[in-house]
Amino acid sequence: MIKKKLGPTTLLFPMPAVLVGSVVDGKVNFMTAGWCGIANQKPPAISVAIRKTRHTLKGIKENGAFSINIPSVEQVQEVDFCGIYSGRKTDKSELFEVFYGDLETAPLVRECPVNLECQVFDTLEIGSHSLVVGLIVQTHVTDSIVKEGKPDPEKVNPLVYCPGVSDDYYALGRHVARAFHVGKRR
Amino acid sequence: MIKKKLGPTTLLFPMPAVLVGSVVDGKVNFMTAGWCGIANQKPPAISVAIRKTRHTLKGIKENGAFSINIPSVEQVQEVDFCGIYSGRKTDKSELFEVFYGDLETAPLVRECPVNLECQVFDTLEIGSHSLVVGLIVQTHVTDSIVKEGKPDPEKVNPLVYCPGVSDDYYALGRHVARAFHVGKRR
Repeated sequence: MIKKKLGPTTLLFPMPAVLVGSVVDGKVNFMTAGWCGIANQKPPAISVAIRKTRHTLKGIKENGAFSINIPSVEQVQEVDFCGIYSGRKTDKSELFEVFYGDLETAPLVRECPVNLECQVFDTLEIGSHSLVVGLIVQTHVTDSIVKEGKPDPEKVNPLVYCPGVSDDYYALGRHVARAFHVGKRR
Repeated sequence: MIKKKLGPTTLLFPMPAVLVGSVVDGKVNFMTAGWCGIANQKPPAISVAIRKTRHTLKGIKENGAFSINIPSVEQVQEVDFCGIYSGRKTDKSELFEVFYGDLETAPLVRECPVNLECQVFDTLEIGSHSLVVGLIVQTHVTDSIVKEGKPDPEKVNPLVYCPGVSDDYYALGRHVARAFHVGKRR
């Protein structure tokens, strides 16, 4: 296999495409993020990289709270919309049915099958972006996607985001194997 | 949509399944991680959450360097193997064809279509895990997956990891839409 160098890049395959919910200047706002990952197990925490100039970041810093909402494939247009237009100029507060859990400034999207309420734990300043790390204080899931007490990935039907020539959203594909199982010594 | 509370969880859909490469006590080692996300754009950075007791973490702390290797679906058995067995007891140095770029302690997996060389920028201690944030100093890609100078996600053919009742690996599914495009105002 011949290798090619591309220099320093932000290539990762795949990424989620989540809606980050916040309250900015008293108004509900949502932005799309692909640069999001689980940051800790006990206590559960999540990280999301947000450009320093983003309207959302202002709200998160003001309130110390935000939400991560995992959309389904059917929501692709709204998800992409929230990634293109800033809440500074576009009112996104009516795009979704919003509900709240424990945190007053972590607006949750009812249409999304999985919603995480997050409290800011720390923020790491790296360069163009702030890496916001939040403790996940509550998880809400749509009742119909739950199987044996846990979400069924195929019912979640998440968007699968991949960078590339055009940056694209995919759906989940075929089941390949069970984790912590297929690699066991036989 | 009726919602159900699941308490604080580490649910995110989907996640990548990457091989974290390191050199521990002079030996090449690889562990599997799903808790990995892009952390910054300029300069490019990546985060990976690693349990504090992990053999890999010892190597990363010793050397200040590691690699992120993105495997293809065909590598699922090796990927899962590296997630089950610790380098403390299992020699994983011969599992893959290893090569090096600029960093002497960031072993890269030739069979993986995308390889990132990372230099530790910071480590955030949250609880059970350390969130290691690394600057991506070089990207290597397999020549045959490149299209117009960028990787083609369908040729990368990455593993798509989802938590759930059993925790599963999926393949990339159908193309849904182009990002920064489908959500534009018409």
